[in-house]
Amino acid sequence: MKLSESVEWAVHCAVLLAMVPDRATLPANRLAEYHGVPGPYLAKSLQALARQGLAEATGGRRGGYRLARPATEITVLEVVQAVEGKEPFFRCTEIRRRGPARVGARHYKLDCGVARTMWRAEEAWRESLREVTIADLARGVLAEASPEALAKGANWLGSVIESRAGTGG
Amino acid sequence: MKLSESVEWAVHCAVLLAMVPDRATLPANRLAEYHGVPGPYLAKSLQALARQGLAEATGGRRGGYRLARPATEITVLEVVQAVEGKEPFFRCTEIRRRGPARVGARHYKLDCGVARTMWRAEEAWRESLREVTIADLARGVLAEASPEALAKGANWLGSVIESRAGTGG
Repeated sequence: MKLSESVEWAVHCAVLLAMVPDRATLPANRLAEYHGVPGPYLAKSLQALARQGLAEATGGRRGGYRLARPATEITVLEVVQAVEGKEPFFRCTEIRRRGPARVGARHYKLDCGVARTMWRAEEAWRESLREVTIADLARGVLAEASPEALAKGANWLGSVIESRAGTGG
Repeated sequence: MKLSESVEWAVHCAVLLAMVPDRATLPANRLAEYHGVPGPYLAKSLQALARQGLAEATGGRRGGYRLARPATEITVLEVVQAVEGKEPFFRCTEIRRRGPARVGARHYKLDCGVARTMWRAEEAWRESLREVTIADLARGVLAEASPEALAKGANWLGSVIESRAGTGG
């Protein structure tokens, strides 16, 4: 079982967008450049964030993305589910209703105990991701990244935002 | 993200094997028949359980499977990981080390905070599945299944074990 790579991209993008000052926006190709990931694929993840109301795309040729809500109010779970969907990991195919012990449908009053166990574990996974916000992750980057990396990141971010402001964006 | 169907099959097989009396064995094709699943695919799951020391195959033409340890000592997590593997759901590709903010390897002293968050959630998933044993699930079936289904299951199990005993197996 494997989460798609776009989960990693989307969470990192959300964290970077949480660091952009004054509701400035970043275009998809700049977000791709910053993370060293392929632009067309990343665009799909960004669109997924927008569809779920986590990011918003400002219109026009000079448009870009920003978070649609404060980063303190966006959980990692929301970002993960925006790109990965909300389908359960475990799909119960009701194999207890096949084979020689099967009985009429009315006898199956509860979900299968195997499925309940699997789904309870998925809820523990979701709950863990629900406890962490994008703002938490952004704070973590600021606390843990090396001063050199932070300086380079801030420098890149400043130049991108300035160049966009300078040409009317 | 989706667990393979063989997870469902393997857990159900382990639960059925937990109900087999006196360390009798059930052949793979009988386990497939009971669960209404394709024998050749199920055989792979059973082999995976055996490789991980959860089930054991008795040899010979009349051979079959039984649990290799008491069902009280086999967790659902072990069965799931036997067929699904232990790879993390989230693979960190270190995208923080790409792009304009990258710095030398010595500056990355901690795992990426995004990855740590994702892995913590996976540990919560594992922990939840570690708390439930195959014996717990078997007890749940006995407590929850309809009397009719239990009677049919016991009847089938008895006839299979008897027919095997009757021909020297």
